[in-house]
Amino acid sequence: MTTHSDRFLRACRREPVDVTPVWFMRQAGRYMAEYRAIRQRYSLLDICRTPDLATEVTLQPVHRIEVDAAILFSDLLLPLEPMGIPFDFVKGEGPAIEHPLRSEADLARVRTFEPREALAHVLQTIRQVRQALDGRVPLIGFAGAPFTLASYAIEGGHSNTFAHTKALMYGEPAAWHRFAGQLAAIVADYLVAQIEAGVQAVQIFDSWVGALNAADYREFVLPHIRRIFEAVAGRGVPTIHFGTGTGAILPELREAGGDVIGADWRIPLDEAWQRIGFDRAIQGNLDPTLLLGPLDRLLAGAGEVLDRAGGRAGHIFNLGHGILPMTPLEHVQALARYVHQYVPA
Amino acid sequence: MTTHSDRFLRACRREPVDVTPVWFMRQAGRYMAEYRAIRQRYSLLDICRTPDLATEVTLQPVHRIEVDAAILFSDLLLPLEPMGIPFDFVKGEGPAIEHPLRSEADLARVRTFEPREALAHVLQTIRQVRQALDGRVPLIGFAGAPFTLASYAIEGGHSNTFAHTKALMYGEPAAWHRFAGQLAAIVADYLVAQIEAGVQAVQIFDSWVGALNAADYREFVLPHIRRIFEAVAGRGVPTIHFGTGTGAILPELREAGGDVIGADWRIPLDEAWQRIGFDRAIQGNLDPTLLLGPLDRLLAGAGEVLDRAGGRAGHIFNLGHGILPMTPLEHVQALARYVHQYVPA
Repeated sequence: MTTHSDRFLRACRREPVDVTPVWFMRQAGRYMAEYRAIRQRYSLLDICRTPDLATEVTLQPVHRIEVDAAILFSDLLLPLEPMGIPFDFVKGEGPAIEHPLRSEADLARVRTFEPREALAHVLQTIRQVRQALDGRVPLIGFAGAPFTLASYAIEGGHSNTFAHTKALMYGEPAAWHRFAGQLAAIVADYLVAQIEAGVQAVQIFDSWVGALNAADYREFVLPHIRRIFEAVAGRGVPTIHFGTGTGAILPELREAGGDVIGADWRIPLDEAWQRIGFDRAIQGNLDPTLLLGPLDRLLAGAGEVLDRAGGRAGHIFNLGHGILPMTPLEHVQALARYVHQYVPA
Repeated sequence: MTTHSDRFLRACRREPVDVTPVWFMRQAGRYMAEYRAIRQRYSLLDICRTPDLATEVTLQPVHRIEVDAAILFSDLLLPLEPMGIPFDFVKGEGPAIEHPLRSEADLARVRTFEPREALAHVLQTIRQVRQALDGRVPLIGFAGAPFTLASYAIEGGHSNTFAHTKALMYGEPAAWHRFAGQLAAIVADYLVAQIEAGVQAVQIFDSWVGALNAADYREFVLPHIRRIFEAVAGRGVPTIHFGTGTGAILPELREAGGDVIGADWRIPLDEAWQRIGFDRAIQGNLDPTLLLGPLDRLLAGAGEVLDRAGGRAGHIFNLGHGILPMTPLEHVQALARYVHQYVPA
């Protein structure tokens, strides 16, 4: 019999489950009063760097919402600092990199590092969370993918056009491939360290890769992502490959790797799954803004996602992107309950 | 024989042309030294509101680049001010709306206006540009579409998530439909006034509508856009319907209206055209960031777009979005020449 603790991992392996597992990207975050209370005293980076705080925040949604997995509370950008790319979070504006990398010389100065030393606090958080969870639900680790990490380092923060990143890619392809390869090696090593510390699945966030078309994805991204999945393969933990706006490149994401491919709300789940191939699991794909509207519309949207999954083994319910700060907690709770109570038509 | 002056209009109607017509979104703009010289003395809104300046800027790319159409220099947001939604442009951050509309009461205060009075300066610019062009190339007019305009008014500027806009759409659908209907009526009237003043084609920019999936597009956007195209139909000018990130909703955009449907670079041109249907013309779809890289890669990318169009009547070459400020003028010039010299394989 499937129990609460392994529903998520079984679905990653496309094994039958009692009900569809659910978790939410950014399930620990500003929409929770418990989280905001901690953020009044500590910065985002303080929390990430303090295992007791990161553990507490990781567990907050597990206590309040019927989620089938916990995800390590951390930030995609943590590896940048030990690479020699300092950054901070500017209130209301997201991450700001102090000296964006714009030239081949800038890229050449980037350092590789030992995550077991420089990010030891993340690994310590993983051990503490596993102990606190005591098998209740599995713990997901994660890292940013090379394109997404590179875009922050090169643009200096979030971008709408990725102009500097693409200009460097097109203009200095050898330098791009060296940098993306270095990022891939770092990310692979960091994920392996997370697995050794105890995470039971890993998600690679290539959040902004939907800005590329299939040809550019194949040339500039796919070989590097594949290297990450190859490094993690065979370590007994499922891998999830996530991006947004990827409707046109889902076959390429699948080819790059991942036992589970994430899809966002722009494409119906059944079409996305067909493009990916039914021999992979799928994660998604409700529009997170539906959580801001009325409950009946939210649950109707969730029902449609589940109908499109059609009860096929290998669907993990999630949003198409992270929970937004202004989301009511009760809606997240009701959504998780709805997914668990759903009976296929 | 096709002449320089009607190549663009013939392609809009899917009639044979001597060579593929080309123009560029934001072909007048910061990447041109002539434009920057004017911007040193006048703000963006000053230029939009002064027919002599707007005429001069509209003509700048026509003098320097082999484009087959001019596009009115103006801004999508101009109709907001006479609607009672004042805004300004903040250096480096884009548009900022003083009091974003967040409630049903905010929406109820929005005014309708007579574009022939409130935006008389735009219509005067159109008359002056037509006179100056003297038939050399046709002039395209434009307006923002209801979703895109509403998103600026509701979010207060550019958004990555469209959270407030969608929350209002889902939560107050009746208020949304009233507001979107009011925007559609204003946009339709504004475009008819532009046509009366002399524009020879109109483009509707629904730049951010790719944030919606097909079901939401059908419910919240399609009826309003259709009303605009119906109001403009039969006035003898072709209509272009543009958005970005729309790979999954191209059939819905086509259904909403437009003789020409715009597509961005995320989806290959031939696939996009197939999704739209070959009984419509297509505009696009080179990634504007290719203009920032080396010339050989730029022209190879352009060649691929043209190969995918396959010499079929009804392709207008353009970028998938506007020219970026850091683009070298010589690349834009070389790209237009390349399109004109291209011989199908």
